[in-house]
Amino acid sequence: MEQEKLNNQRHTLAHLLAQAVIEHYPSAKLTLGPAVDNGFYYDIDFGGEKVTDADLQKLEATMRKNLPKWTAFTHQEVTRDEALTQFDGNEYKTELINEIADRGETIILYTCGGFTDLCRGGHSDHPVDEIDAESFKLDRVAGAYWRGDEKNKMLTRIYGLAFATKVDLDAFIFQQEEAKKRDHRKLGKELGLFIFSELVGPGLPLWTPKGTLVRELLNDYVWELRKPRGYQKVTIPHITKKELYETSGHWAKYAEDLFKIKTREDHLFAMKPMNCPHHTQIFDAEQRSYRDMPQRYAETTMVYRDEQSGELSGLSRVLSITQDDAHVFCRENQIEDETMAIWDIIETFYGTFGFKLQVRFSRHDPSTPEKYLGGEEVWAKAEGALKNLMEKKGITWIDGIGEAAFYGPKIDFIARDSIGRVLQVATIQLDFNQPKSFGLFCINEQGEKEQVVMIHAAIMGSIERFMSTLIEHYAGAFPLWLSPVQVAILPISDKHSEYARDVLGKLKASGIRAEIDDSRESLGKKIRAAKTQKLPYLIVIGDKEMESQTVTLEGRNDEKHEGITFDATLILLREKIDNKNN
Amino acid sequence: MEQEKLNNQRHTLAHLLAQAVIEHYPSAKLTLGPAVDNGFYYDIDFGGEKVTDADLQKLEATMRKNLPKWTAFTHQEVTRDEALTQFDGNEYKTELINEIADRGETIILYTCGGFTDLCRGGHSDHPVDEIDAESFKLDRVAGAYWRGDEKNKMLTRIYGLAFATKVDLDAFIFQQEEAKKRDHRKLGKELGLFIFSELVGPGLPLWTPKGTLVRELLNDYVWELRKPRGYQKVTIPHITKKELYETSGHWAKYAEDLFKIKTREDHLFAMKPMNCPHHTQIFDAEQRSYRDMPQRYAETTMVYRDEQSGELSGLSRVLSITQDDAHVFCRENQIEDETMAIWDIIETFYGTFGFKLQVRFSRHDPSTPEKYLGGEEVWAKAEGALKNLMEKKGITWIDGIGEAAFYGPKIDFIARDSIGRVLQVATIQLDFNQPKSFGLFCINEQGEKEQVVMIHAAIMGSIERFMSTLIEHYAGAFPLWLSPVQVAILPISDKHSEYARDVLGKLKASGIRAEIDDSRESLGKKIRAAKTQKLPYLIVIGDKEMESQTVTLEGRNDEKHEGITFDATLILLREKIDNKNN
Repeated sequence: MEQEKLNNQRHTLAHLLAQAVIEHYPSAKLTLGPAVDNGFYYDIDFGGEKVTDADLQKLEATMRKNLPKWTAFTHQEVTRDEALTQFDGNEYKTELINEIADRGETIILYTCGGFTDLCRGGHSDHPVDEIDAESFKLDRVAGAYWRGDEKNKMLTRIYGLAFATKVDLDAFIFQQEEAKKRDHRKLGKELGLFIFSELVGPGLPLWTPKGTLVRELLNDYVWELRKPRGYQKVTIPHITKKELYETSGHWAKYAEDLFKIKTREDHLFAMKPMNCPHHTQIFDAEQRSYRDMPQRYAETTMVYRDEQSGELSGLSRVLSITQDDAHVFCRENQIEDETMAIWDIIETFYGTFGFKLQVRFSRHDPSTPEKYLGGEEVWAKAEGALKNLMEKKGITWIDGIGEAAFYGPKIDFIARDSIGRVLQVATIQLDFNQPKSFGLFCINEQGEKEQVVMIHAAIMGSIERFMSTLIEHYAGAFPLWLSPVQVAILPISDKHSEYARDVLGKLKASGIRAEIDDSRESLGKKIRAAKTQKLPYLIVIGDKEMESQTVTLEGRNDEKHEGITFDATLILLREKIDNKNN
Repeated sequence: MEQEKLNNQRHTLAHLLAQAVIEHYPSAKLTLGPAVDNGFYYDIDFGGEKVTDADLQKLEATMRKNLPKWTAFTHQEVTRDEALTQFDGNEYKTELINEIADRGETIILYTCGGFTDLCRGGHSDHPVDEIDAESFKLDRVAGAYWRGDEKNKMLTRIYGLAFATKVDLDAFIFQQEEAKKRDHRKLGKELGLFIFSELVGPGLPLWTPKGTLVRELLNDYVWELRKPRGYQKVTIPHITKKELYETSGHWAKYAEDLFKIKTREDHLFAMKPMNCPHHTQIFDAEQRSYRDMPQRYAETTMVYRDEQSGELSGLSRVLSITQDDAHVFCRENQIEDETMAIWDIIETFYGTFGFKLQVRFSRHDPSTPEKYLGGEEVWAKAEGALKNLMEKKGITWIDGIGEAAFYGPKIDFIARDSIGRVLQVATIQLDFNQPKSFGLFCINEQGEKEQVVMIHAAIMGSIERFMSTLIEHYAGAFPLWLSPVQVAILPISDKHSEYARDVLGKLKASGIRAEIDDSRESLGKKIRAAKTQKLPYLIVIGDKEMESQTVTLEGRNDEKHEGITFDATLILLREKIDNKNN
């Protein structure tokens, strides 16, 4: 309801913008102006006139000046001819009017504040009362083809931001600016975490030693949480005959998203887009007794999707995706315990980074059964099981109808990062369908075959995407335990080098990732270099430290420990690392 | 020289076999009978007669009976017509004679012990003096098409084993029988280490939790040896645009062995057959100063080769190969230190398993320059560097002319396993060519660009192949530190279960991989099951142990510690694990 109100405000502001445009550019031709995420836009043909970001201020001022006159919308049904007369000379509106009339629909003109536009409706009834004049802002000018078709004329699109309140608007602008500063593509390069190569191609990141270290620390952490819960690592090849995906159902649903390989012997192989079908084969290779259940297989491995190159972006959308995947094969009466264990892991893991989690219950859409495997009764059972669980857990959830995987419903976890952005992260999927397709069973207490259930449970999901999230969440300043370099040692001059190397050696021997900067630069320059690299700690070594055989430890957030012993330094660092603090 | 003498003996035995065949089957038509690895064969057209393994004994006896008459070979040059008359009615020899004559070559008939055959020569001059009658054995009968062409008639091939001495023959037969018992395909299944799936396809092993554990322990061990030597892990995608391999030279040399992918946008990608080209891109992403050198990148990752399915065999030949790969980018004056460091790792690693290593110096063949990148002077420099190094190390090496990689010479390590088989394992490759193709340099002390050198250094090489080697080397009885299950706990009856579970919990908490067998089977059966699984240790728990709160620890090799405390058990196991003993 709130969202609908906000959409109406945004749409109304598109009208208000159009009126301001006509005031300043009487010969401009209006085309279309809808509400969109975060605001609205209007596409305009300015004829020969060039309108740029510099013109936005005056248009915004005119919108504010006119708003008080926008007391109430009225509308009027008109005939095709009346409409065509009203927009005479505007070929865009003419095209729209004729289309509406040809479809036999009613043509409606909406008027407010003395301005009339062809429109489907969806406005604030009383704009001046409903819209805070400070809650919107014209954002930028861009080019856009009429109706998005590059064969058509290029129009000028004016984007506006609009929110319910000025506070929301300011928060959004702040978030946008912060996001720009935190862009993982920029920071990834500056911090030397990953690279792209022209020769290897777009969408295929290569991870440097520093980036690999962070990935491995994260992956080890997931394993540290999984291992005590009985998970076991397995290893599968990255390709398969297509028969595997014909059985799993992936071929029918996703064949065009797969990287396909024709072998020298003319067999058709595919690179794996998911790991579940391969993992079923390991489960199925032996007869399993109820005493062997559950079997919990974990594997961090790459999957591949043949994405369009226009869709690729930094680490967020790549062709080769590393998943920290896991599949639990269990009996129906084990679903609850297994799901709760995964939930625990997810809460612990994301909590460590300060992410707040929301839950979405991603169900199938009964109106499009062709999108899913299995019948209604199977879906009812699977969704019922997850619903029970969420109720038992006593949480509220967002209802995600139509958001299920094709083989089963999911509990999706939505995180909010440090600048308030919302991201989908981990997922728990309950799957009765693949076990059926692959004929997976265990022998139960009665000596009968009993079909098993699969739970799909990635924690980070895509490590690439999680890395991009984490880089932006921390603006590159990773917590101590995750920092590729934890401590930089900065000798003030040459004569401090030997003692500095001594400290370096001792830190390294204690498992601290330390580096020395014994270049001939000034201390100021060394400190700036370390800060650019967002290093958690600096150890400055000068005469005083050398004489007293101590160090001065400086944290990146104004934390300073002057003249402490090496042992004290180590205890301080160790404690933070072990507790994943910072 | 020894080898030539042995080949002559083997070839002579093929003649001796042919004579015996004609004695028993006068209408048999002889075709061709060469020396081969481990012995010889003769392909024979027996007409309607069926000859099987059961007939070999009598043929072998006849060979032994005739050998004393084989005092000396004589030979005689004959005309085409003379030869055709000699072999009248034998269409195979007729075909061979006409070919030799058409090429304008001399036709020679060799005679010994009253038996004459068409032949190129290469015999023992005095068979009865040179050949030990007990040093050969007819091995088996197989089918073989005339001249290996399936369009031709199927002949009967009789294989013989032949060695310089009876001791060598017996050793070989023992080795063959042992090898059959140790076959990793059989043991891999019995021990539940890896599986193949019909749906995934041949040549694509899937690793169970147990197999994955062994792989990971091995890989961790390599890393344990690399880490203190300054190696850093990196991570690359498994695919690339073909441009990367055009630059590296792989496309020109190996395009047909690559798995190729046509993307939805019609770009040509390949799955990586090697990791070096990708690793160059990480090195090349930043400008490197001489102070940054060497850069040592390590990565355990899969590579892919489009092998013919007929070539695939267990883990020895697969389509997806896991390599524990590393590339060192260094300056020329760092080659020695870096190579010696790798050599140390290889010696330590293989020494742990009791493999004895020999070295082969794999050089390029100057007579086939088209097989290699780079000119003679580059090869002279690279080969000179490796030769110096081997001399410094004071070892003898096998000369492997023509065994180099296409980009540089190698030091190959050849291991001898527990049953005396010889296998190529680790390799150190020196590469001046790829750094040139990719333009890899560092800025030296003079501020100039200096081309770097690459050292390729896999320790296990293919983990799949190394696993097959290790399984067969140990006949599946992995040393304690590598065993997926280290200790089986066997309570004698139900009333011992609780104490047994107690011991299990304590072992697990101490990081020992233990399992309990509390099935209702007899103790004898439980012990047999544990022995079949080749478990290193059993703990039997009965009344005595329960009363005294001790355990009885039994090793698989008659080792027995009766009634020892839990702490003593732990110390004993821990010491062996930490020292990689057993």
